[in-house]
Amino acid sequence: MGEQTYDDGISDISDKVGVILSELGEQEESYAHGLDEARNALKSIRNTEKSVQPSRDSKSKIADEIQKLKFKEPQSPRLVVLEQELVRAEAENLVAEAQLSNVTRQKLKEAYNAEFLATIERAEKQLILAKHGRRLLALLDDAPMVPGDRRPVYPHGAQARQILNDAEDDLRDWRPEADAYGTPESRSPTNSFRGRISQLMKQMRLILPQ
Amino acid sequence: MGEQTYDDGISDISDKVGVILSELGEQEESYAHGLDEARNALKSIRNTEKSVQPSRDSKSKIADEIQKLKFKEPQSPRLVVLEQELVRAEAENLVAEAQLSNVTRQKLKEAYNAEFLATIERAEKQLILAKHGRRLLALLDDAPMVPGDRRPVYPHGAQARQILNDAEDDLRDWRPEADAYGTPESRSPTNSFRGRISQLMKQMRLILPQ
Repeated sequence: MGEQTYDDGISDISDKVGVILSELGEQEESYAHGLDEARNALKSIRNTEKSVQPSRDSKSKIADEIQKLKFKEPQSPRLVVLEQELVRAEAENLVAEAQLSNVTRQKLKEAYNAEFLATIERAEKQLILAKHGRRLLALLDDAPMVPGDRRPVYPHGAQARQILNDAEDDLRDWRPEADAYGTPESRSPTNSFRGRISQLMKQMRLILPQ
Repeated sequence: MGEQTYDDGISDISDKVGVILSELGEQEESYAHGLDEARNALKSIRNTEKSVQPSRDSKSKIADEIQKLKFKEPQSPRLVVLEQELVRAEAENLVAEAQLSNVTRQKLKEAYNAEFLATIERAEKQLILAKHGRRLLALLDDAPMVPGDRRPVYPHGAQARQILNDAEDDLRDWRPEADAYGTPESRSPTNSFRGRISQLMKQMRLILPQ
């Protein structure tokens, strides 16, 4: 823009507004990158969901089989084996459901927190840039000229340069806000998982068919 | 997400985070609309630039012709006619250049101000939304469960609803900032243009070849 006006003010302000616009564009890219990370956390929920389904299916398949056999052949020795299989399938499913619930909650928070933090970072940095951009525009005299007049020599080169420096400084000094609503470090349930499973196994043995 | 967990907390928070995300998306659309308006202002600069070029060409074509004729046929009566044509072409070009300079400055400021204002509006509204979004996530208990445990009943339905109401209120109360660096209303140079042109014409008659 303004290449054909041979006009120092227009070309200086256009150039520097161009720097601001390109920096706004860089913030869009970081934001897109932040969204990708959020999407990855959501994928791990879907993956866990998929891995839990076979455990649900296997549990209900065995339960169905037991029902049918009890009806058709109530004395079958296979019933004992199936009851044992059902207890194992229930134990496995109990673990799978707990894993799914834990993964879903943790990753859901993680994913949307990442998305919101990326949104906040882009917003705050683009606010800095847009406000300095408007300071630049204010340096451009747009009082209409009449034909034959000359505009006074453009006096704002140093000031415009300073505005870009200010924008750069403000961006560099930007920090994410104190994390009032943050997710604490994920606590690994692995150890209590193991302990609880052996405890459950003991309880289950008590109800195993003799 | 979380459809397979039969979990009130996850489904309530997911739904309400979904509302925030869709509102974030609406802000993207308003922003894109604001950018379109900025682009239109830039187009009017390009159009004026295009319309000025023929006036420049015609002026220099006549000047060239005069130079050639002075060399080849210094006494030609056509020289007088050409000199008069040149004065007219210069007057027309003077007006065109002033128009271009005025349009360029006004529309450049208008376009980039519109772009920066759209950026600021999106940023401030998305900040509101993302911060309330993080409040929602904080209501989701992500302490890991061990297999066989039940999570306590989800107690935050009303609080989550209130967060959405807060977000809605804050968006509705949003106002653009006081316009410290704004462009004042465009002043039309039309009248002074006319006056100045007749003044110029008078001066030009004084230097017309007799």
